Parts: sequence; structure tokens; C-alpha cells
Amino acid sequence: MKIINTKDTNFKTEFDGILARAKSDIKGVSTIVMNIIDEIVLDGNTALKRHIEKFDKWEVKSDEDLMINPADMKKAYDNIDEKLRDALHIAYNRIKTYHEKQIPKSWLDFEANGTILGQKVSAVDRAGLYIPGGKAAYPSSLLMNAIPAIVAGVKEIVVCTPTPNNEINELLLAACHLCGITKAYKVGGASAIAAMAYGTQTIPKVDVITGPGNIFVATAKKLVFGEVNIDMIAGPSEIGILADETAKPHYLAIDLLSQAEHDEMASSIMITTCDEVAFLTSKEVEKYLKTLSRETIARKSIEDRGAIIVASSMEEAIALMNEIAPEHLEVMTKNAFELLPYIKHAGAIFLGENTPEPIGDYLAGPNHTLPTGSTAKFYSPLNVENFMKKSSIINFSKNAINELGEACALLADTEGLTAHAKAVRVRLENNNK
Amino acid sequence: MKIINTKDTNFKTEFDGILARAKSDIKGVSTIVMNIIDEIVLDGNTALKRHIEKFDKWEVKSDEDLMINPADMKKAYDNIDEKLRDALHIAYNRIKTYHEKQIPKSWLDFEANGTILGQKVSAVDRAGLYIPGGKAAYPSSLLMNAIPAIVAGVKEIVVCTPTPNNEINELLLAACHLCGITKAYKVGGASAIAAMAYGTQTIPKVDVITGPGNIFVATAKKLVFGEVNIDMIAGPSEIGILADETAKPHYLAIDLLSQAEHDEMASSIMITTCDEVAFLTSKEVEKYLKTLSRETIARKSIEDRGAIIVASSMEEAIALMNEIAPEHLEVMTKNAFELLPYIKHAGAIFLGENTPEPIGDYLAGPNHTLPTGSTAKFYSPLNVENFMKKSSIINFSKNAINELGEACALLADTEGLTAHAKAVRVRLENNNK
Repeated sequence: MKIINTKDTNFKTEFDGILARAKSDIKGVSTIVMNIIDEIVLDGNTALKRHIEKFDKWEVKSDEDLMINPADMKKAYDNIDEKLRDALHIAYNRIKTYHEKQIPKSWLDFEANGTILGQKVSAVDRAGLYIPGGKAAYPSSLLMNAIPAIVAGVKEIVVCTPTPNNEINELLLAACHLCGITKAYKVGGASAIAAMAYGTQTIPKVDVITGPGNIFVATAKKLVFGEVNIDMIAGPSEIGILADETAKPHYLAIDLLSQAEHDEMASSIMITTCDEVAFLTSKEVEKYLKTLSRETIARKSIEDRGAIIVASSMEEAIALMNEIAPEHLEVMTKNAFELLPYIKHAGAIFLGENTPEPIGDYLAGPNHTLPTGSTAKFYSPLNVENFMKKSSIINFSKNAINELGEACALLADTEGLTAHAKAVRVRLENNNK
Repeated sequence: MKIINTKDTNFKTEFDGILARAKSDIKGVSTIVMNIIDEIVLDGNTALKRHIEKFDKWEVKSDEDLMINPADMKKAYDNIDEKLRDALHIAYNRIKTYHEKQIPKSWLDFEANGTILGQKVSAVDRAGLYIPGGKAAYPSSLLMNAIPAIVAGVKEIVVCTPTPNNEINELLLAACHLCGITKAYKVGGASAIAAMAYGTQTIPKVDVITGPGNIFVATAKKLVFGEVNIDMIAGPSEIGILADETAKPHYLAIDLLSQAEHDEMASSIMITTCDEVAFLTSKEVEKYLKTLSRETIARKSIEDRGAIIVASSMEEAIALMNEIAPEHLEVMTKNAFELLPYIKHAGAIFLGENTPEPIGDYLAGPNHTLPTGSTAKFYSPLNVENFMKKSSIINFSKNAINELGEACALLADTEGLTAHAKAVRVRLENNNK
């Protein structure tokens, strides 16, 4: 694995290369995806069937064929290995407990003049979860998307997942049963996003769409944004690690690889203050690489997009990491917690040597749907608020309008809005006659 | 003003017409806007200057010409009428106080096994506010966009506003001074959105862009979403009013008009349980229309997109209003507060006869940037969280990983991710040797 030093003369160029890591080429597929969406809007289920036959290679004979039978979910749940079922339950409960702490409360505030201001928080009516299928069907994705919606109080949750050759991952079905999903559809890709955004004869129109997916799914989500809300536009997975001389190189190495194995486009970057840790970690990466079932993918990711950076100080290391704003950030230093105030941008922060990133992928509790590609500078992890929205509450008393009305009308006057001004003054006239 | 009854045979068709109210035709201008954005990305300031000469009709001689001098803001502030300055201060203080109540706190939670989970909340580094210029230059827009960013703790706030013929609204300048804005640029339209999203030699790249604008601005915001975060995609303004027999028709009429005067595309819908209130309000609308400075606009809005609906019960009225999900909702009934639990979707809710909608436009406190076109079903009013983002915090103890590690590794196994599983098991091996 490549080691570079912040003192290298070409460091800035190298680091700019890291910052310019893979972004999804949304523009490149926009036209294709726009056409797919148009077809769904125009032809509904008929277009869905056409797309399934084309992409997933099975024939949809009726509208009912689009639906996943909840009885199949129950059967899958009953049939899985007990240890695995227990593990799913542990994950479910921990994720639920964490997300329950995120629920925002409606509030009211009272003023001496009788005014009441506040904010009402409520769940959206319908949420649509997109869960990738086929080889990359991750039951953990279902838990991580469904649980915040459940905790938010969403009444109707819709799941779409592609089923190549009409086959579904059994563990995904089991996870659906665990989450109480009753409306799941065998529809994938941009078609699924369009179907949930606009509705078809079978799939209900939702208010919010969340969930991971390939470039076509990401592009479709961007294109339907505004018609529905979406969580974020995510790209390839990433890990950043801050390590000092106390970090264990073999921990660092396997953690870097746990992102690299996801995707050739994934990026794994470690910044350390210690030359020896850099050197030893690089060695360990090579050793572990050979043991991985997805060695080819991981190797390409590490070679093309991986780097170990040696920094002159932890201060410099953190400053560089804040520029990267990684999806996952591990802090493997003797005083991990004390560095928290300085870490400005990261999707999730993993502190200390007993917190490997994968623990957050499955069952630590926080969501594993996280902003990538530096978007942690402005996006948050998927959370219950993605499935909720707010309304402002305003109740002016007679005293309040009498006291503040004229200032308000004056501002309306200056903006040339006479009905605005009059709406206030008609109250003042009436209250004071 | 048109009165319809839910018992009319063609009511459903009429109501569907209301639901299908004006949406912004983003697709129609996408290509034009995409080209504008590409020009800014490619040519930076040079493109900005070109666009200003073309659209705002003045010649930009240097990069400095793009900037608004803070000394001019101070001068404008000092020169405005004292009463107006006081009104601006009242608005500023009330808006600030309300938004301060929205600030989310970072939190940590502790488990018996030593695990610490939490959420760090922090402001984005840079926010870009778009403020329309020319005739529609509303100083209130600046307050409503700048204050949540200030309260969120954003260090660098950038303002862009078009200056047709190189002229700026003095009150907007004064509002900039009041908000402590130091980086404001004479750039408007899609060019401004592109400049803030990608940065130019003069205008810094920001993390979040908020603010109202025409169809070109809305489309540009949608297109740069993902490169930066945005608040929402807003269309024409709307008011919905729920009224019973206790409501005052002349209040209802002028409040309906206060939205209608914004825009021919604005929509003003009242739903009442009382025939007489419907009839009298319609009369009052006609009476007031003739007094408005923007009569032509308001009349066209009321005729094309306004309606008074007579419902059989308040329950039915609320159900219809929830389908409309209006930007502004006035509740003019004898028990306005008691209806709050049933109101599911609205940007801002104005309760009682002393709370005309314009009071919320200027100085009640809550934000006046609100979701339109039924998007209140999933978007929230602009708020401090638009300028903040979260990072999950995970700190597993040795006990915790020993207790939960194997369940986690098992889930990773089933997803075929061997490095994920190994990253956990290497800790278990080490902790238990």
C-alpha cells in the first residue's frame, strides 16, 4: 500500500488526487435515467414489467407477481439459523434504541404578551426504501433504512428490491419479517425509484425515498428530488483512519481492507504521525489481502485509491482528514475522545481500538447509511428526521398584534405589498375601535 | 371568487385541479441552466461577468466590481428611516430568538458494558444565501436566510443577489449590515447558484445554498444538489384557510389576497363549514382587490387559482386541507388550537384571528421560507438544521466487542464480507488470548 509523506515535494498533488476521489457520474447516465422515469410515469406497471423482463430476466405475468408475499418473509425468518436470527435481533434492538434517542419533540414557547410560537414535528405518511438485490443484497441495509422510519412513526413503509431471475436473498426476506414490512415489491433500479416517486397501479407514491444503490439509482433519486424528499446521493464507500504510535498495525490494516473489499472504487486512507506504524500497516495489508474472498476487488481499491499518509503532527493529520471528510473515520490514538472537538467532518466517528468500522455496519446502533465523497461536510447520517417534517406554529394574541403589527405593516409597505400591510392593519383597526 | 361545494357532482374534478396547482417546470429549463452552470465551472469570474452584462445590463470592469462593499451596507443602514430600522431590529431579534430554540445539541449515551454512543452536531463551514434582486428584492428574505445560519454558528456566510443596472435595494443593504454580512456579491440567477456551488476566483465554494428565486434559480439548486446541500425547491406561494362560522369575512378576504398579490401563479384556497362566510368572503375579496397596488396580479391569481370550498364538516375540511398541504395555513375557528392534532401537513400554521399570515412573513419569529406545492408533506420550514450536520459517535469497550463481536461477524459472514468479519474477530482473538 502506497505511503506518502506530507513533507514530500509532490504531496499537494497527491493529496488533491485523494480529495478528487470517485464521484458518481450522475450527468453521464442522466438521459437514460430520465427516459426510464418517463416510462414509469406514462405506463406504470406495464413499464415496470418491461424493465424487469429486460434487466432482471424473468417474466411478470400479473400485477401480483410484482409483490413479495409476507408469508414468504415469515417462512424465511423461521427457517434461518437460530444464531443468525439472534444476531439479527441484536442488531434490530440496538439500532432501534439508538434511533429512538434521535426523535425530535414538538415544542411550544410562550411570551408575556400572550403569543405562542412553536414547532410541530410529525412523521411523513409514506416512506419508500430501496434495497439493492442480487449479489449485493444486504439485509443490514434493510434494517438500517426501515428502523429509522419505524421509529419516526411512518404508517406505511414500502420496500423495493430487484430480484434477478426472480430470486430473493432469504436473509433479506427474514429481515423484512423482523421489521414488519408488508408492502415489498420485486422492482429495482431507476424504475423502482420512479415507481415510488410517482406511484403506479400497484406501488404507492411515497413522500420520502431512502436507501443505497448503483449510479442509476443515485441518479434517479436526484432526478425525483422535489417530487419526494430523499436522504442523500451516495457514492463509493470510504474509510479514513487517524493513527498514532499506539495503534496496532494489524487492526489498522484489516480495517482499511474492510472498506476496500466493498468496491474497486472504495477509498481507504490512513493518516498517521508514526513512520513505523505506516510501514507495518502497509505490510499487514498485503498479508491480509491474500486471505480475503474478495481479494481482487480489495486489491484494486487499495492500489488505485488507497494511501497511507505520514503527517508531522496529529494537528496536521486532523486538518487533512477534515478536508477529506470521510464517510467512516476511525480514531486509533491514545486519547481518541479528546480529539473529538477537532474532528469537523465525518459521517461516523469510531473511537478506540475496540471499535472497528464493521461494528457500525451491523449492530453498534448508529446508521450505516452515511455521506460519502466529502459530503459529510453538509449531509448527516440517515436518521429519524429523514422520515419526519416540521410545521411552524404561530398564535398571536390581541396584545401581540397591537404591539407588533405596525412594525410588520411598515416592512410590508417598504416591500410594496399592500395586501400584506392591510391584513395586519385591519386587525389593528378592529382591535382598537 | 369562485365558491365550490364538496357536494357538487364535479367536486372531485375541481379539487384535483386545485391539487395540481402550479409546479415549477424544472425540466423545461434544465438544459439552459445546465449550460449556465457549465460555463461558470469552466470560466469562473469571466463567465459571471458575461452573464451580468447579458442579464443585469451593466459592465463589470474588475473582480472587485462583483463585490458589495460592507461600507455601503453600513451607510444604507445609517440612512434608513428610524422607524424602519426599529422594525428591522424587532424582526431580527424575534427571528433570532425563535431559531435559537431550534438548535439541536450533541449528545452521548452510555451503556453498562462501557460502550458510548452519540451524535455530534456542528455547523457547516460555509453557507451561501441567494436573495432575489431588482423589484422583488425583499430584505425580509435576507433576515430569514441569514439568521438561521448565524444561529447555527456558520463561520462564513456568503450572499449573492442580482443587481439589475448595478442598482441595489437600500433596505437589503441595511439588512445585510444588521446581519453582519461581509461577503456579498452582485451576482444573480443560475450563475450565482453555480458560483456558490463550485466556487470562482472571487466567490467561495459553500456547503449549503438556501434562498428563494425564480425557476432558473430553483432548477440550478436542484442540479447542484449533491455537490452542496440545498434547503428545498420552492414554487409559487400559497395560503390555505380553514374557517368556521365565527371567522370574520374581511379578515379572511385580505389574508387570501396577501398571498395572491405575490404572484399570478400564487394560490389562495379557503375551506369553510359556513355558506354565509363563503359568500361574504368572496364579496370582501372583490372589494379589497380594487384597493391593492398589485391588483392585476392578485386578481389573476384569485381568478385562476383561488377557490372557496364549502365543506360539510370541519373534519372533511381538514382532510381536504391535509391533501393540499399548503405552504401557509390559517386556522380561523373558535377552537383553533384544538385542531392542531389533526393538521398533518402545512409549512406554517397560523392560529386564530389575530395571526394574519403576513405577521409570519416579517417578524413573528418562525421562518418564512416554507415548502410549497404539497411538499409540506415531506419538507420542513427553513431552520437552523439546514446549516448543521451530524456525525455519529461510536466507542465500543473491550467488554462490548467481546459480548457483541461474534454476532456482528456472523452477519458479515452471511453478506460475504470476509474483511468485515475478520476486523471484528481479530479483536476478539487479541482480547481473549
